Amino acid sequence: MTKRILLAAVAALALPLPALAQGAAHDPAALRDAALKDDFAWEITEGLTTEIGQRLAATEAETRARAWAVKKLTALGFRNVRIETFRMPLWVRGAETAEVVGPSAQKLVLAALGNSGSTGPKGVEADIAFFPTLADLQAAPAEAVKGRIVYIGNTMTPTQDGSQYGYFGGARRAGPNLAASKGAVAVLIRSIGTDHHRNPHTGVTNWAKDVKPIAAAALSLPDADQLERLLRRGPVRLRLLVTPEFKGEAESGNVIAEVPGSDPSAGIIVVGGHLDSWDLGTGAIDDAAGVAITTAAAKRIMDAGQPKRTIRVVWFGAEEVGGFGGAAYAKAHANERHVLAQESDFGADRVWKFEVNLPEGAKPIANRLATVLAPLGISRGRGTAHGGTDVGPIINTGVGVIDLSQSGLRYFDYHHTPDDTLDKIDPEQLRQNVAAWTAMLAVTANAPEDIGPIAKGGGE
Amino acid sequence: MTKRILLAAVAALALPLPALAQGAAHDPAALRDAALKDDFAWEITEGLTTEIGQRLAATEAETRARAWAVKKLTALGFRNVRIETFRMPLWVRGAETAEVVGPSAQKLVLAALGNSGSTGPKGVEADIAFFPTLADLQAAPAEAVKGRIVYIGNTMTPTQDGSQYGYFGGARRAGPNLAASKGAVAVLIRSIGTDHHRNPHTGVTNWAKDVKPIAAAALSLPDADQLERLLRRGPVRLRLLVTPEFKGEAESGNVIAEVPGSDPSAGIIVVGGHLDSWDLGTGAIDDAAGVAITTAAAKRIMDAGQPKRTIRVVWFGAEEVGGFGGAAYAKAHANERHVLAQESDFGADRVWKFEVNLPEGAKPIANRLATVLAPLGISRGRGTAHGGTDVGPIINTGVGVIDLSQSGLRYFDYHHTPDDTLDKIDPEQLRQNVAAWTAMLAVTANAPEDIGPIAKGGGE
Repeated sequence: MTKRILLAAVAALALPLPALAQGAAHDPAALRDAALKDDFAWEITEGLTTEIGQRLAATEAETRARAWAVKKLTALGFRNVRIETFRMPLWVRGAETAEVVGPSAQKLVLAALGNSGSTGPKGVEADIAFFPTLADLQAAPAEAVKGRIVYIGNTMTPTQDGSQYGYFGGARRAGPNLAASKGAVAVLIRSIGTDHHRNPHTGVTNWAKDVKPIAAAALSLPDADQLERLLRRGPVRLRLLVTPEFKGEAESGNVIAEVPGSDPSAGIIVVGGHLDSWDLGTGAIDDAAGVAITTAAAKRIMDAGQPKRTIRVVWFGAEEVGGFGGAAYAKAHANERHVLAQESDFGADRVWKFEVNLPEGAKPIANRLATVLAPLGISRGRGTAHGGTDVGPIINTGVGVIDLSQSGLRYFDYHHTPDDTLDKIDPEQLRQNVAAWTAMLAVTANAPEDIGPIAKGGGE
Repeated sequence: MTKRILLAAVAALALPLPALAQGAAHDPAALRDAALKDDFAWEITEGLTTEIGQRLAATEAETRARAWAVKKLTALGFRNVRIETFRMPLWVRGAETAEVVGPSAQKLVLAALGNSGSTGPKGVEADIAFFPTLADLQAAPAEAVKGRIVYIGNTMTPTQDGSQYGYFGGARRAGPNLAASKGAVAVLIRSIGTDHHRNPHTGVTNWAKDVKPIAAAALSLPDADQLERLLRRGPVRLRLLVTPEFKGEAESGNVIAEVPGSDPSAGIIVVGGHLDSWDLGTGAIDDAAGVAITTAAAKRIMDAGQPKRTIRVVWFGAEEVGGFGGAAYAKAHANERHVLAQESDFGADRVWKFEVNLPEGAKPIANRLATVLAPLGISRGRGTAHGGTDVGPIINTGVGVIDLSQSGLRYFDYHHTPDDTLDKIDPEQLRQNVAAWTAMLAVTANAPEDIGPIAKGGGE
């Protein structure tokens, strides 16, 4: 059940913003160039990661983060700033240690995967069953797995479009369930990442309804290398202690802010990122940067004058642990006319391409985007925009989407690790993002074309 | 008291190595070029870091490492392979957590410094007293420190010669003692490092006899940045738990192996590195690489034929925690004629310069070194060689030294952190090191000049 908390700022709901001449005020190229000197995005990223730190979904820290967000969005001058809460299952990390037993006795560095089961306080000790890939585990008979600690190798490399995450991430998302179903006592995976530091990459794993969760954790990449070197020498026995807990239902929420448009019939453009983070780092690239970039861009449009369409900024809650915020938003706002929805959730490195999924009549928008984004080093990609976890549910109702794709070459070095901290954000690249989003909003929020539902998605 | 354990290999003490014609066999340029394809150094580095892992001085793991070393050095064909043990104080890490208290509640990542005292099992909670540098702490009145957790900032940057370590390392070596003497309840320092990862840099701190050790730990660099951002916003209160223990005296040891020379009167050349490591990583760059490089070079000389001078390879124990191995070696071998002593203890990146400290009659050696090292991209530096912790005590008795200086631009990214692992070694640069050491040994072990004691140091 979604409950809306309406804050003082909502009183401003019906007040119009300063009505400037739109043509001049929203010149996309001028706004884009001004945004290359943006400070709002840095202030938001720095503030949220410093003053709150980690923001695991449904914890007290995420609650503090929502209060921080409301204060910041109100101070920036947005209208209709509010929190929309929802309930969800809470999972929290416990102890996590692993040590090789025997003549090469040594500790390994690991982190439990989100939704991991527990070994219990005494831990488990067992031999490793090694599978280089998820497919090898799939092909293995149960007797090769039963009673063992399964280890899945699976080496991802950096790509600009981050596309390897979908494939290699399978070992994390599906590997533990598969191992448990074959009788493993626990699962370790090589972190789904591309770095060479001793910081493991967490992330959710999924369990089938009839499978009892077992302990599931990721080894840092150097520790995965180390384990594989030991396995090449002979059998390896491991002592493992992983004690996270499921704590039942708890409250999370989305934070919403608006730049009201002059033409309510023209529909709403949703932009945003997610407010929650994993618990290991301070969630700078994932996803303080995303809320910061999209908020800064909306702020720049707002300050230049009222747009035609309403821009709604959403700081989604509980993305990491299962996309609860995006689902709650789509459910709560199913009856509104959304025309576009897009998120920033891939760090803060330079945008290098854009792709669209627009209804027939709105297709000229893409050409105008190409012109205004080109000076930022951004060209049109060969594919179709698909949005992401947070806007997925609303896009699925037939809403158009534009992807501003950031470089993924560094992203999986830090993703879901203790290393996702402010120092990984390059202020110059962050500004390029704000400029791209500002230009995109200047074009789309004022586009004369009707941006109707897209046929493919189904419509409202 | 130093006790010698003579192993089976010692039976070979008096047997000569195959007597080849030295002139052709030890052509420095030919040996240098062959060493550019060396595999010995990689095998040693990979084996020691994989099969043993961390090797904290005087622990069971360091004992296992000595056994590993004897086996490896014997298998490589060295003569007089033996362990020389000594006793020393043992310090071991306990729990270590820190959390900011209050509205920005969050955990910080830290590691106790070697020789740190304990907060006790209940920890301490206190306000932070911030000092940007050690000099600021020095200048502060005791009332600004008493009852507080002192934090020392102090930002080091990468340099090719690593020279900033001497200056900035002062905050680690002397800061805790100074803070304790002014009444601090605990001390945190910004890690003495140059990276941007959440892996703290440990290392020893020193206490005056009349000062009771307090808890002393290093924050990872992103956590130090975070703490400083919070301190800029106002007072910060911290809860700290650091519980290492001093465990009394325990056994450590040096591992020694030789390439016996044909002319005992020409003196001994000592080369080596240290076998022990900090407990957080697997001690790949610090200092598996050092023992590997020097051993591989000595092996290449040995395999080419008997040199004039004896080359003695020493894998020193207990360097990190106070240079106990180097001191024990100098004491045990004070009556032997050492003519040169040099160590490799600065990682495995390329050697870029060399410097010497040679007695008057041996100075032409430096010119021959310049010629043979130039093709490796190594030129003579402007300074005088000074050796390092392990060979310092023997050098101080009037022994000559040659420094083959590696690039330090990456070294302090990993130094004393969990991140000091095998993947930080570039095999190509490792081979360049072996080539440089091989060429140096080919020149010095067969130099016709007498390499007498150097006047400055005092002599035996």
